[in-house]
Amino acid sequence: MDLKAQALQMHRSYKGKMEMISKVPMDSMVDLSLAYSPGVAEPCIEIKNNPSTVYEYTMKGNLVGVVTDGTAVLGLGDIGPEAALPVMEGKAILLKRFANVDAFPICLDTKNVDEIVQIVKALSPTFGAINLEDISAPRCFEIEDRLRQELDIPVFHDDQHGTAIVVGAGLQNAVKLVNKEIPFLKVVINGAGAAGMAILRVLQQLGYQQIIMCDSTGIIYKGREKGMNSVKDSIASTTNPLGLKGTLKDAMDGADIFIGVSVANLLTKDMIDAMNEDPIVFALANPTPEIAYELAKEWGIKVIATGRSDYPNQVNNVLAFPGIFRGALDVRATDINEEMKLAAVQAIASLIEDNELREDYIIPDAFDERVVNVVAQAVKDAAIDSGVSVLFQPALKQS
Amino acid sequence: MDLKAQALQMHRSYKGKMEMISKVPMDSMVDLSLAYSPGVAEPCIEIKNNPSTVYEYTMKGNLVGVVTDGTAVLGLGDIGPEAALPVMEGKAILLKRFANVDAFPICLDTKNVDEIVQIVKALSPTFGAINLEDISAPRCFEIEDRLRQELDIPVFHDDQHGTAIVVGAGLQNAVKLVNKEIPFLKVVINGAGAAGMAILRVLQQLGYQQIIMCDSTGIIYKGREKGMNSVKDSIASTTNPLGLKGTLKDAMDGADIFIGVSVANLLTKDMIDAMNEDPIVFALANPTPEIAYELAKEWGIKVIATGRSDYPNQVNNVLAFPGIFRGALDVRATDINEEMKLAAVQAIASLIEDNELREDYIIPDAFDERVVNVVAQAVKDAAIDSGVSVLFQPALKQS
Repeated sequence: MDLKAQALQMHRSYKGKMEMISKVPMDSMVDLSLAYSPGVAEPCIEIKNNPSTVYEYTMKGNLVGVVTDGTAVLGLGDIGPEAALPVMEGKAILLKRFANVDAFPICLDTKNVDEIVQIVKALSPTFGAINLEDISAPRCFEIEDRLRQELDIPVFHDDQHGTAIVVGAGLQNAVKLVNKEIPFLKVVINGAGAAGMAILRVLQQLGYQQIIMCDSTGIIYKGREKGMNSVKDSIASTTNPLGLKGTLKDAMDGADIFIGVSVANLLTKDMIDAMNEDPIVFALANPTPEIAYELAKEWGIKVIATGRSDYPNQVNNVLAFPGIFRGALDVRATDINEEMKLAAVQAIASLIEDNELREDYIIPDAFDERVVNVVAQAVKDAAIDSGVSVLFQPALKQS
Repeated sequence: MDLKAQALQMHRSYKGKMEMISKVPMDSMVDLSLAYSPGVAEPCIEIKNNPSTVYEYTMKGNLVGVVTDGTAVLGLGDIGPEAALPVMEGKAILLKRFANVDAFPICLDTKNVDEIVQIVKALSPTFGAINLEDISAPRCFEIEDRLRQELDIPVFHDDQHGTAIVVGAGLQNAVKLVNKEIPFLKVVINGAGAAGMAILRVLQQLGYQQIIMCDSTGIIYKGREKGMNSVKDSIASTTNPLGLKGTLKDAMDGADIFIGVSVANLLTKDMIDAMNEDPIVFALANPTPEIAYELAKEWGIKVIATGRSDYPNQVNNVLAFPGIFRGALDVRATDINEEMKLAAVQAIASLIEDNELREDYIIPDAFDERVVNVVAQAVKDAAIDSGVSVLFQPALKQS
């Protein structure tokens, strides 16, 4: 039986992938009177009188709402909230499996940005954090921005930041492997959607100064007329310092790094040949990358990473989001800010020692049990240092 | 340590009472690729192409959303959505414990009826049914009515119907025990809130024809001026056929049955003495009933039921709602209608055989393991017979 048939059968035989169970005994009238009426009135009264104790007496502090409207599910597009549920259940159990974070799918039957913001705000009392998932661009940007501003719990759009963090980590190691220096490297990012935008931001923070972004129209540059919008205007003003124009092929000329969050089998031999020596390619289109692994090797790409689990260097968000939520929840962060994201980048990269670094090992394995703890610890420290932890204050700086 | 301190400690040490776990293995890259990308795309595509398969491939079909706005929590009143969470977690784990129904708390930070209806509708893709909980009257009536009309999954307000069903069941047995005939019995219901209204409806369907409802103003009658509203107008027009006026004391004159969903220690000896012979009293105020159990016995009440677990004849909703949701979900009912509620009444009552019936045993014990199955089966049959099961059609009637 192939993977597709097996996946269908597995989902059908379990009727979904998650269940909600009790952590407390429920076997006697005494158990019942502690967990429910009349005993349950006591934590209710405590929380009413001292709202922050909701973190002590309920599941809120370990609970993430996985929110989608079903508009950008995997590579399937706008398939609706019901059809998105298998992915959200999957996300929820990954959080439990990798970080012991409880999570619950919220699949919303609306695509209206105002309504989504309003609903998530109204739902927020139950949750310690919100993970936005599979919401189409550019709506996802506004929803995330507004929720981050209006909620006092962290809001994280994994399709953007999870991917960007793992890409950033992999790049740190790839660049080290080829002995190049970040500021001078020419990077081409193909795809200006949610993931592309977040990758851009992480790379800028890592010090990359020569980034060219392309979309289906070609290179994005200041003054381009075709296919621009406010997001692309902002891209044009912070990238492409030399004002390059033209096609993806033009952009690839002399590039050190290509990052594709675009479509299958896009890279041609011409493009690869035009790259600088020791080219690094992150071909992240799913399930078929911008260039097949074997072809990349044949055409002389030094380091190739993809989204696939059946090749080396898998860019798998599971390396990032479980530890990020674990860390944010543990210090009761009010936000998942840039400092915390960069800390996660460095934490993931750091797991591969210099003497272990190889072309086919720049990113830790998804099941490397060290990852979640190292990421969580780095995220906690960064949350405290950047002043967004409710539980811990930043250490006094020595002058 | 007393119960209050114990309840607080238990909630604090477990940090809430429920967790979300995986039903499927997650220990290898193969597991991951079946439960998540790329395998998870298959059930998504199936559901997109054939929406009803969401019941086959996801948790929806076994999942109840426990929705509150925190406005009428236990006897504590409007304590807000955060403070309501311990009760909602409790409700969720009761559903799991008693009926293997998964459930999740939705505590909404809004009291606006339109907004609550809109939000629950938007959330409904994830859920197989909705349980409304601890929402204040009369808002709860409108919210339930509108959601029942607008959703194709069942909506059930347990504070109303759960209580009413168990009261109805207990009364069936109490009346049998005292050898009286329903249509001629005079019933006084004190309290015209959510539970009182639902009890009224069940009793009317059981054939009671002489019901007097009282509120804090006294007997509700056609033409009363003080403290009326549309709900009470409808009470006045379907109860109190003789047009009695006056106080609760006046109502109690010659009453066979008193049902209190009101306040502690309300019943006086005068009132009890004024009742008909073999008086039946359901004193459901929580945690202190309208009359203490010992006093009821001393004053000659034949059958006394309360909401308390430390006395006989506990009116405990847990006898009703787990089996009701189990039954409704199992046949994929689109509603929990009057037929299903009445079937639950009779099912619960039927568990006590005539030769077991005693003054202190008219209602089965909360931990009677037979209850959930008997209720679920009765509810399933009633759902099918009344034509609200998506999975099963009513049997053809023999002419």
